[in-house]
Amino acid sequence: MSTAVSPLAPTDVPEMPAVAGVRLATAAAGIRYKGRTDVLLAVLGEGTSVAGVFTTSRCPSAPVEWCRARLKRGQARALVVNSGNANAFTGKTGRQATALTASIAARAVGCKPDEVFLASTGVIGEPLDASKFDGVLGTLAQNAADDGWIDAAKAIMTTDTFPKVATARVKLGKATVTISGMAKGAGMIAPDMATMLAFVFTDAPVAAGALQSLLKTGVQDTFNAVTIDGDTSTSDTLLAFATGAAKEAPRITRAGDPRLKAFAKAFNAILADLSEQVARDGEGARKLVEIVVEGATSKQSARRIAMSVANSPLVKTAIAGEDANWGRVVMAVGKAGEPANRDKLSISFNGIRVAWKGARDPAYDEAEVSAAMKNPKIQIRIALGLGQGRDRVLTCDLTKEYVAINGDYRS
Amino acid sequence: MSTAVSPLAPTDVPEMPAVAGVRLATAAAGIRYKGRTDVLLAVLGEGTSVAGVFTTSRCPSAPVEWCRARLKRGQARALVVNSGNANAFTGKTGRQATALTASIAARAVGCKPDEVFLASTGVIGEPLDASKFDGVLGTLAQNAADDGWIDAAKAIMTTDTFPKVATARVKLGKATVTISGMAKGAGMIAPDMATMLAFVFTDAPVAAGALQSLLKTGVQDTFNAVTIDGDTSTSDTLLAFATGAAKEAPRITRAGDPRLKAFAKAFNAILADLSEQVARDGEGARKLVEIVVEGATSKQSARRIAMSVANSPLVKTAIAGEDANWGRVVMAVGKAGEPANRDKLSISFNGIRVAWKGARDPAYDEAEVSAAMKNPKIQIRIALGLGQGRDRVLTCDLTKEYVAINGDYRS
Repeated sequence: MSTAVSPLAPTDVPEMPAVAGVRLATAAAGIRYKGRTDVLLAVLGEGTSVAGVFTTSRCPSAPVEWCRARLKRGQARALVVNSGNANAFTGKTGRQATALTASIAARAVGCKPDEVFLASTGVIGEPLDASKFDGVLGTLAQNAADDGWIDAAKAIMTTDTFPKVATARVKLGKATVTISGMAKGAGMIAPDMATMLAFVFTDAPVAAGALQSLLKTGVQDTFNAVTIDGDTSTSDTLLAFATGAAKEAPRITRAGDPRLKAFAKAFNAILADLSEQVARDGEGARKLVEIVVEGATSKQSARRIAMSVANSPLVKTAIAGEDANWGRVVMAVGKAGEPANRDKLSISFNGIRVAWKGARDPAYDEAEVSAAMKNPKIQIRIALGLGQGRDRVLTCDLTKEYVAINGDYRS
Repeated sequence: MSTAVSPLAPTDVPEMPAVAGVRLATAAAGIRYKGRTDVLLAVLGEGTSVAGVFTTSRCPSAPVEWCRARLKRGQARALVVNSGNANAFTGKTGRQATALTASIAARAVGCKPDEVFLASTGVIGEPLDASKFDGVLGTLAQNAADDGWIDAAKAIMTTDTFPKVATARVKLGKATVTISGMAKGAGMIAPDMATMLAFVFTDAPVAAGALQSLLKTGVQDTFNAVTIDGDTSTSDTLLAFATGAAKEAPRITRAGDPRLKAFAKAFNAILADLSEQVARDGEGARKLVEIVVEGATSKQSARRIAMSVANSPLVKTAIAGEDANWGRVVMAVGKAGEPANRDKLSISFNGIRVAWKGARDPAYDEAEVSAAMKNPKIQIRIALGLGQGRDRVLTCDLTKEYVAINGDYRS
């Protein structure tokens, strides 16, 4: 398996400032990997509120169930993330492992186990030996510091090829607050079944309910609009923490509070940035692909059509082959089961219209299109001509490297 | 692109007997391919009834629309199939091409254009020059003979690696009738966008309504239970023709007629045989994969879960890698959105149970499972433990060859 950094990795990594009320530390606990960090502890100040969204899988991992059950309280003091083992499909042992991890972390940090949030990523079905956290988390709690964001983003990686971080500073009332996040991707990655994990931290005093509402809205057009292979992990987790340490900022209790407008925009931008980085690090990805659907009967219909195109192996292999194969796009539109009229359909690749009103564009110039397809970023724009519904999703191409990553690991 | 015959091709090809009332002929009309046949004409006796099922695509090809509109009359005298060009997404030109082809065929055969059925497979969006059929179809009608079934199955191939035929003889009343069919696969194949086409012929006197009913029921657990890559062609077509030339057999007007029982069983077996051959010739396939789901809340729920597993790129790449990666099966069950309870779920590969009641099977023996995964046929059995719903679908693995076939064709 190639360990080269994705050619789509962002070229400039931001300086990650401290977020008041957040301290980070990482360690190599030997969960599965050798010679690399695999545990992240984030220690959160008193009064930190938490929000979360999780996988829609009917077979969620033990940490997902743990977090879901603790979200109603809305209070967090610690986050423990391990890579190498997903603690998924581990039955009772899995539930015991989450309880033990939380109690070790609670002791280390000085909080209640119910204030500890957990995320695990890695192989499925392997029991997680939580006793390995004993000692480790105590040391981490002592060493936790307000820097080390890139190290933290590295500790949660599985087969990601680069750490994913994003940060912004924004006005809240008269104060300036910080929002910083990290993510790992992407879909389900072998040999360790992986997952999408993302964590966003802010020092803004946003109450749990308002934060949950912001998060739920924010993911719709960011994390929920990204697909690598259509496979949904048992462990997808996105948690947002607001420490409230920016005391000079107004305390926000409703997502609709007009003072939150700039913050919400910056928060969404962080989600968009991190989720795009996930697409840029899709397994074997060589092209970042944006599917824009316009003129659908509704936004929801546009989303379904865009996802049908984004998850089509034939569209994705054609892009890997740098072919503007709009016939396959027609196929994927047709199979989505949403209203579409062949005779009104137009399709462009990187701004060049190739199909128009149900047939090949009369002005189609293969050489021009072929040149455009060499771009590492490909936009497919599909105009349905039926209504005002519009949506956009991000994905990547499907290469032999994807199959190698996911099929060759045993040979 | 490899042109080697799929290692999963059947080892014995049946002798194909004549079907009274059916005459076949093929020609090289130069639609797209060089040095091979690309047109099939089947001339059907007077009184032939016809039934059909088609792609669910919202962007169907012109021949699909042509056939659908003529199915109500229920009468057929000719079938024209061409490979190399799908006549899909070709707008008005496409409709004109179907009308022209039908009128050329009608003249050649001596019937009405509305009694001509059409199917096209190949590249999408390229205008089909139907004038190429002029002359060709006349000669074919003169030369049509009651043998040549394998040649016919070859003429409709695109990137199929072997011709697909099946035949059976069965009692209908006191007479013995013949049912013979041919198919081409599989999913959407590049560089010519392909499609699933299948044609079944019998000399039994079965009225169009009864035949349609048989066909609709028969495809549910055969052609509709096969998936290669989850991509639905704009042109999928399955037509059944009953010439009624077996005069000594009773004329059947209702699918529920008890005299049809043995016939229906044989008819379904032909559909099952042909559809399995389609799976065996999936692009790049090295393993035939059967997904069996038991204990679901309904058959429909079992089907959705089986399809979620069968279409999962991660399950398919794991099988290509000969890994019994049941964690990925859990993932695919979980993402199906159907009732599933992790703590009741059990999974077997080729009869060896690897996961039991929500955790790894205590008796799991990796060496035993690894040996079983080397088999060219893999059965994944998923027991949900919730109800009586059961279903089965066929698919194949996802190999680098699939990506090469569908992505490398321009380089």
